[in-house]
Amino acid sequence: MTTPMLTLTTVADGGLKPVPGIELAAGGAGIKCTDRDDLVLFKLAPDTRCAGVFTRNAFAAAPVCIAKSHIESAPIKALLVNSGNANAATGEEGLTDATLLCAAVAAELCCDARQVLPFSTGVIGARLPVRKMADAIPGLCRSFSAENWGRAARAIMTTDTRPKGCSTIVEVAGVPITITGIGKGAGMIRPDMATMLAFLATDAAIARPALQAMLARAVEQSFNRITVDGDTSTNDAAVLMATGTSAAAEIRGFDDPRFSLLSSGITEVCRYLAMEIVRDGEGATKFISVIVEQGSTARECLEVAYAIAHSPLVKTACFASDPNWGRIVAAVGRAGIPDLDAVHVAIYLDDVCVVENGAVCGRYQEEAGRRIMRDREFSIRVKLGRGVASEQVWTCDLSQDYVRINAEYRS
Amino acid sequence: MTTPMLTLTTVADGGLKPVPGIELAAGGAGIKCTDRDDLVLFKLAPDTRCAGVFTRNAFAAAPVCIAKSHIESAPIKALLVNSGNANAATGEEGLTDATLLCAAVAAELCCDARQVLPFSTGVIGARLPVRKMADAIPGLCRSFSAENWGRAARAIMTTDTRPKGCSTIVEVAGVPITITGIGKGAGMIRPDMATMLAFLATDAAIARPALQAMLARAVEQSFNRITVDGDTSTNDAAVLMATGTSAAAEIRGFDDPRFSLLSSGITEVCRYLAMEIVRDGEGATKFISVIVEQGSTARECLEVAYAIAHSPLVKTACFASDPNWGRIVAAVGRAGIPDLDAVHVAIYLDDVCVVENGAVCGRYQEEAGRRIMRDREFSIRVKLGRGVASEQVWTCDLSQDYVRINAEYRS
Repeated sequence: MTTPMLTLTTVADGGLKPVPGIELAAGGAGIKCTDRDDLVLFKLAPDTRCAGVFTRNAFAAAPVCIAKSHIESAPIKALLVNSGNANAATGEEGLTDATLLCAAVAAELCCDARQVLPFSTGVIGARLPVRKMADAIPGLCRSFSAENWGRAARAIMTTDTRPKGCSTIVEVAGVPITITGIGKGAGMIRPDMATMLAFLATDAAIARPALQAMLARAVEQSFNRITVDGDTSTNDAAVLMATGTSAAAEIRGFDDPRFSLLSSGITEVCRYLAMEIVRDGEGATKFISVIVEQGSTARECLEVAYAIAHSPLVKTACFASDPNWGRIVAAVGRAGIPDLDAVHVAIYLDDVCVVENGAVCGRYQEEAGRRIMRDREFSIRVKLGRGVASEQVWTCDLSQDYVRINAEYRS
Repeated sequence: MTTPMLTLTTVADGGLKPVPGIELAAGGAGIKCTDRDDLVLFKLAPDTRCAGVFTRNAFAAAPVCIAKSHIESAPIKALLVNSGNANAATGEEGLTDATLLCAAVAAELCCDARQVLPFSTGVIGARLPVRKMADAIPGLCRSFSAENWGRAARAIMTTDTRPKGCSTIVEVAGVPITITGIGKGAGMIRPDMATMLAFLATDAAIARPALQAMLARAVEQSFNRITVDGDTSTNDAAVLMATGTSAAAEIRGFDDPRFSLLSSGITEVCRYLAMEIVRDGEGATKFISVIVEQGSTARECLEVAYAIAHSPLVKTACFASDPNWGRIVAAVGRAGIPDLDAVHVAIYLDDVCVVENGAVCGRYQEEAGRRIMRDREFSIRVKLGRGVASEQVWTCDLSQDYVRINAEYRS
């Protein structure tokens, strides 16, 4: 179920393809550590359109507030991204800091500060080291390259153990279109209308409303279907840039037949990045697809799926490879679905029926369940017996390492 | 904030007071282990009234379904409680098993099977060993004693590390009234309209509707305000028995001035048991009161409180004694409160202001936060700046032991 429809090349095999019209630079500003890259600058070709989706957390970070404002007000020329510090819960001073950094980039690139989008990820509540960061910007501007996607993917990591990125080529009306995306995230992952940080670019020409629709659709089917720990970040953001440097004519709207082709490509890249975030979930040893079928509405399917995906008891059972399906049953039962009739519920581990008619399946053998749960990737599938809606979310297990990582982080 | 208003004596100091009219017996039926008590029988004096509240999990266990039916249909003579097996997700066969056990008790006590309430706690999805349990019942019926509350508290434990129980005496119109309660629970704790298992008794005479109201009020302010892991059990139940053996006249309704006196006593006992469950939460090293004030409604206060209390990131920070308040901010922000304005939010650790006006408090010193979080008990207090509603929930931290316990349990 996790096989992409398109051929993807990933950061792991050095396969991130340059996107004509996008240049990147990465470097170290010593924001939290001195021995790594922590600052990335994207430079966008003229006429590049940008779409963005952002966290709905009420404590949206300063860079999120500013990026939301800038993306609506002027053509975007650059994105500045830092790891190591989220610039969140920093009040007016945080807004000033982010604005100053946009101005520092604008001065180098001869544009307006409102043409720069800022993004931050890392510890919440600390001021950004603006001086150190601003000092690093001229150097970055001397090292732009279209080949820097892999280095950028590494520079935006926080508790991630590996960089996340992929590329694909979509043939659109005879013209090959490149899509490349990078993302970061491993903890505080339960995106809501957005994600951790993800940056995607294509050389297609796409009108702004169509671009925003493409991104929204892709995010809804990817980043908005994952959870590591149920905690929505203050800094979630996903940006899609369309440089228009390819030979293909502009895609103006939904009725353009090329819209859905390109949209599928964007969604595929987002799904890959979303799954990579779950696979790299803090302390994760398992990747679990939670599939809920036969619901009356998509919403109730999602509620059941998240009740399972957030249950610490289900997640520790997955960690232990223990087919303790009673915990899945309890999670389904507490999901708050009105008038759910247990008698119609069935539960599968991959294709093995564990529960039917609300009780253990007669032919179920515990060893079969255990064999599946020993795999690194498997599915928990619930049939509610109430309708035809279905939904799927991806999550990981809960290990002792999750606690260790989060008890040690920051200290 | 956790000091009871009444003097409570606890199971720890051997202080569980007999309630005239209630006799108990405990013994071992070898349900899961052979070296411990796992079966408890309560015998109730004639004319004892019973009130109960039960889980709203859609997969309510067989004993819950039967107890809910029996408590409405006939005067209750006995309660049969077992640990080691929850008789949940066992379908029709589970209902038959629980009914057979009620009949076995009824045969010994010369009553109808519908006058017996069954309760089970333990692993979900396995059949009860009915024969072994039925065989143990005649022996239990030969060992009834009013002094057995402490032994019963031990017999109903599952992953609990210690028995939970307390007693108090309430002077009601010159007549001393005893209230004694025991409870169990450490994991799968996020009661919803009920609790894990709790059994309370008083020798007051209380009409059934008043008794049910007293229990509902007490549960709402105690078991319905705690969470260990957010997982609502399939077997939650709380029962309040009023034997009417004291010299006081019957309390018939809410307008009886003695109602609120006794109701406070019942609530106090439930709050003690609820807090004990959190203190004994699986792997817990900290007891945390999450207090949310200045909300527009009690409901939104509870939503913010549970968002904090369920956040694995907040809970691991508590475990690490790390005043990583950014995680509290993120949880408040994602609680889904419409139009929450971060600028009006303040956050305290005990009485130390950490966040005000949506950003770190100018006079806050991290060492002060760390000192508080090193305590075994402390509070996280959030002021929403929107109104006058307030709510409080109790939770514990998330430790590596939580994962170990739940990865090992059952295997």
